[in-house]
Amino acid sequence: MSGFTLSDLRLGQIFETGSLVISREDIVAFAASYDPQPMHLDDSAAKQSLFGRLVASGWQVAALTMRLMVEARPFGATPLIGAEVERLRFRRPVLPGMRLQCRAIVEGFEASPRPSLGYAKLKVETIDADTAEVLMVQGWKMLLPVHDERLSAESDVDDA
Amino acid sequence: MSGFTLSDLRLGQIFETGSLVISREDIVAFAASYDPQPMHLDDSAAKQSLFGRLVASGWQVAALTMRLMVEARPFGATPLIGAEVERLRFRRPVLPGMRLQCRAIVEGFEASPRPSLGYAKLKVETIDADTAEVLMVQGWKMLLPVHDERLSAESDVDDA
Repeated sequence: MSGFTLSDLRLGQIFETGSLVISREDIVAFAASYDPQPMHLDDSAAKQSLFGRLVASGWQVAALTMRLMVEARPFGATPLIGAEVERLRFRRPVLPGMRLQCRAIVEGFEASPRPSLGYAKLKVETIDADTAEVLMVQGWKMLLPVHDERLSAESDVDDA
Repeated sequence: MSGFTLSDLRLGQIFETGSLVISREDIVAFAASYDPQPMHLDDSAAKQSLFGRLVASGWQVAALTMRLMVEARPFGATPLIGAEVERLRFRRPVLPGMRLQCRAIVEGFEASPRPSLGYAKLKVETIDADTAEVLMVQGWKMLLPVHDERLSAESDVDDA
């Protein structure tokens, strides 16, 4: 099959991912390794925090956003390689048992330092079951092959 | 003890964290849960990828940056609550066995929507043992209590 290239995306194109439920065990396990703070580790300690209850680390919500995006395979067999993010917002606390899902929109294209690769800029909103936004990633620059127009007359570029 | 407030930080103040080594097992375990793509999961599949070898998910490097920052306790007992990031760059691939460390600088202050809380804006660079930058977070807005000057003549605000 032909490799997926930047030319296969349209400006404004929307992808929706599947969903997943984040459990209390997931929240505590992630926190123990990556964000060992009371509001992510322990119910009673979390009660004393600004949040008043156990909440997921924002970085776990970002990581779950990556997982949902990877599983949605927006570029087919071509991997998701993010080089940069222009803005990341932790919008609302994520609680045990919440179901999360993402909606991504192609918000632009940009040249990359490598001539054969370019960036698709994605905006991704991660929402809970009530469609309230819990996380937003803007200007997420995904590295993708650039279709070489000089080759297209004879054959597709095959990088798969 | 008195709670740590925005007034306890100086513009340009620098914090250095401890360091940690990321293992192949760490990389694969994180990827299985959060970024299940060939270049993070399997050596031989990774050889066929853009990176040519197994590399950590960028979101794992971001999460390890959080861990290093949390362990450094730059605000004492006051937690690190990041509301937003203005820019996040995945600068270089992170390989199994790399030792990572962070340097943070206070790059600004900003009002938050809540009058009793404000943002300290941090720039954090995560570097490998050769001091090459692997990840950069800019404009990382950390929520902190605002010292109430009207109270300071009589007593410190105690929120610890």
